[in-house]
Amino acid sequence: MLYGNLKAAPFMKGISILGSTGSIGCNTLKVIDHLGDFRVVAMAAGRNIEAFARQIEQYKPEFVSCEDEDCAEELKRAWRTGASGGAPEILFGEAGLIAVATHPAAGTVVSATVGAVGFIPTLRAIEAGKRIALANKETLVMAGELMTAAAAKSGAEILPVDSEHNAIHQCLRGEKRSEVKRLILTASGGPFRKKSKDDIARATREEALDHPNWKMGEKITIDSATLMNKGLEVIEAKWLFGFDADQISVIVHPQSVVHSMVEMVDGSIMAQMGVTDMKHPIQYALTYPERQTNCLEPLDFTNIRRLTFEEPDPDRFPCLGLAYRALQVGGTMPAVLNAANEVGVRAFLDGKIGLNEIAALNENVMNEHTPEAASSLETVLAADVWARSSAIMKIEKQASAVIS
Amino acid sequence: MLYGNLKAAPFMKGISILGSTGSIGCNTLKVIDHLGDFRVVAMAAGRNIEAFARQIEQYKPEFVSCEDEDCAEELKRAWRTGASGGAPEILFGEAGLIAVATHPAAGTVVSATVGAVGFIPTLRAIEAGKRIALANKETLVMAGELMTAAAAKSGAEILPVDSEHNAIHQCLRGEKRSEVKRLILTASGGPFRKKSKDDIARATREEALDHPNWKMGEKITIDSATLMNKGLEVIEAKWLFGFDADQISVIVHPQSVVHSMVEMVDGSIMAQMGVTDMKHPIQYALTYPERQTNCLEPLDFTNIRRLTFEEPDPDRFPCLGLAYRALQVGGTMPAVLNAANEVGVRAFLDGKIGLNEIAALNENVMNEHTPEAASSLETVLAADVWARSSAIMKIEKQASAVIS
Repeated sequence: MLYGNLKAAPFMKGISILGSTGSIGCNTLKVIDHLGDFRVVAMAAGRNIEAFARQIEQYKPEFVSCEDEDCAEELKRAWRTGASGGAPEILFGEAGLIAVATHPAAGTVVSATVGAVGFIPTLRAIEAGKRIALANKETLVMAGELMTAAAAKSGAEILPVDSEHNAIHQCLRGEKRSEVKRLILTASGGPFRKKSKDDIARATREEALDHPNWKMGEKITIDSATLMNKGLEVIEAKWLFGFDADQISVIVHPQSVVHSMVEMVDGSIMAQMGVTDMKHPIQYALTYPERQTNCLEPLDFTNIRRLTFEEPDPDRFPCLGLAYRALQVGGTMPAVLNAANEVGVRAFLDGKIGLNEIAALNENVMNEHTPEAASSLETVLAADVWARSSAIMKIEKQASAVIS
Repeated sequence: MLYGNLKAAPFMKGISILGSTGSIGCNTLKVIDHLGDFRVVAMAAGRNIEAFARQIEQYKPEFVSCEDEDCAEELKRAWRTGASGGAPEILFGEAGLIAVATHPAAGTVVSATVGAVGFIPTLRAIEAGKRIALANKETLVMAGELMTAAAAKSGAEILPVDSEHNAIHQCLRGEKRSEVKRLILTASGGPFRKKSKDDIARATREEALDHPNWKMGEKITIDSATLMNKGLEVIEAKWLFGFDADQISVIVHPQSVVHSMVEMVDGSIMAQMGVTDMKHPIQYALTYPERQTNCLEPLDFTNIRRLTFEEPDPDRFPCLGLAYRALQVGGTMPAVLNAANEVGVRAFLDGKIGLNEIAALNENVMNEHTPEAASSLETVLAADVWARSSAIMKIEKQASAVIS
């Protein structure tokens, strides 16, 4: 039987959390409560100051960071008006996020901010040689080459917190890379799996946020409804595991019991199954290579009535195909797709565009982009900025066309 | 990523096959045809001399063995009457089987005889430090303690060829034993999964031999119909992987796509899936720790309509419970259950008893047995002989009671 390489354990027990008030952040804190022997040394959140203040009181990190100066002031007021314990040092903005991500006492950084904001802080944590528990998939989607090169240089381990990539990580234990035929990401299919194109075009915000299996943040839930999330995961899988697009496939598995699979060259399919609770992959990323008991109910096979599998429909869910195209083009194209999509999802949540228009927006922005090698941070960020402004302009143009 | 310990490869390429004309034996030869770089140095078969002679012509082993002297004479006649190539040295009986099992040029011994006949030859192969590709589960059921002690002493590796244990072996790659919560053997449920007790009591030989998923030999197919096969596999799993009865569970999974699973302490379920073709586990056992491409169609998820799971019914399938009881009693009890069952299956195939009477026979013989520690070959074999004669007498008594 094979064993993992156990890294020096004490160092790993200090944790920084980027995005502590989000879905992954809150679940990370529950896992830490359960495990008992980890310590939160720094944490960063956005604008949910009330929740953040409570977390700070409970976990007593050495310093914290929030979105901007106003948030920082609001947080300071919480201590003046009664929050107990010593006030932590309060930072804000990207500099604050980077400080949290590179806290010297943090062996592990949980990267769980939403969207591109976590990009540079996560890169800095990688450069500092931290273990990265990565939930922020934009990091690898935007600049997988830069991130993995930085990890190779610093020795940082990137452990995926997505249930799918976490499952693949588990399936690959004890396997040789050269003996892997393909990775198989499972997709729930989202709330519109059985809906027509017209239904999808008319989908409301509430319908799109009603994910059948997973409780997650808004952005990823909308991405699940369009299968863009699965597309981003295909790109992420390339960088996490080093396989090309033709070795990464997607299958729709509505029950989300099989979290993902790996097909070996001898035809064997290794699959990881479990309950649909993000605390499992979070704990795995924190304790790897060890597995520890957790606070979840075990999977009950007699409650699983059936597991089914079907091919994704590229016609109703064009975002998945766009992700494969971006991965094949390479360079700055995945960053452009990611940025356009982030703008599109925001516009959908704000009632500005229909759900089906996200894919059209993404495709239009990609069509106008001249890809470059993603060889520097500046190039990637420039592509990101260009794609965002391009997407915003398209949405505004469309809105004014509707108004006029 | 973790790697297996690669043993010296050239030595492994010589193969002896015990039971070459059976289902596993024939499939082993097909795998060898596919792999190309293995050589059959010795083979043993029973009474199917015509098929054996053809195999010998094709694979040209250095010596062979068959059931008895008559069979050996028949085999010699095949060469006198036209079989091409040099005649191999022809042995017979247990001495012949042992010679095949310990051929010095054999790095791997495929132990695929049916029933208890392979017991001592397999032990001798283990003592000789061979890699054992084990399809003969009686070996571990009868004397798991002796066999595993011999393997620990000689350094022999025992690699399971059953699809279930082979799946568990794959699921355990890269995992720590202490982090395993339980092994989960899947059972197809056999042809009588949905039948009533009365239907099972009236089952014909043809109905019982009509396995829904797997093409196998007669003995194991009947054992699958009574779930005795799964019971024997529970006992086998104990010895192969070192877990007690309370850490080995059975779940009925009629589609046989999930070949078995391992639940880890963190709630993760690692599963191995594949096509229902014994060539997969055979090849895995021959090439481990490497995986090589094989000659099978890959598993097609879009053809899998659904995977279902249900608890086994101890009332309609009492053999499974008997196996747990034998394992918990320990000592010679599993050997006694195995021997009684072998007699019972033969009697059912010969039309002497009903399918439901196999379990009753097993239970009666077990009830009359005073278990001893299975500390020597003699003790185990004496228990085996006692149980066989006890079972035969019970069947004869019942037959004469019916006649009189």
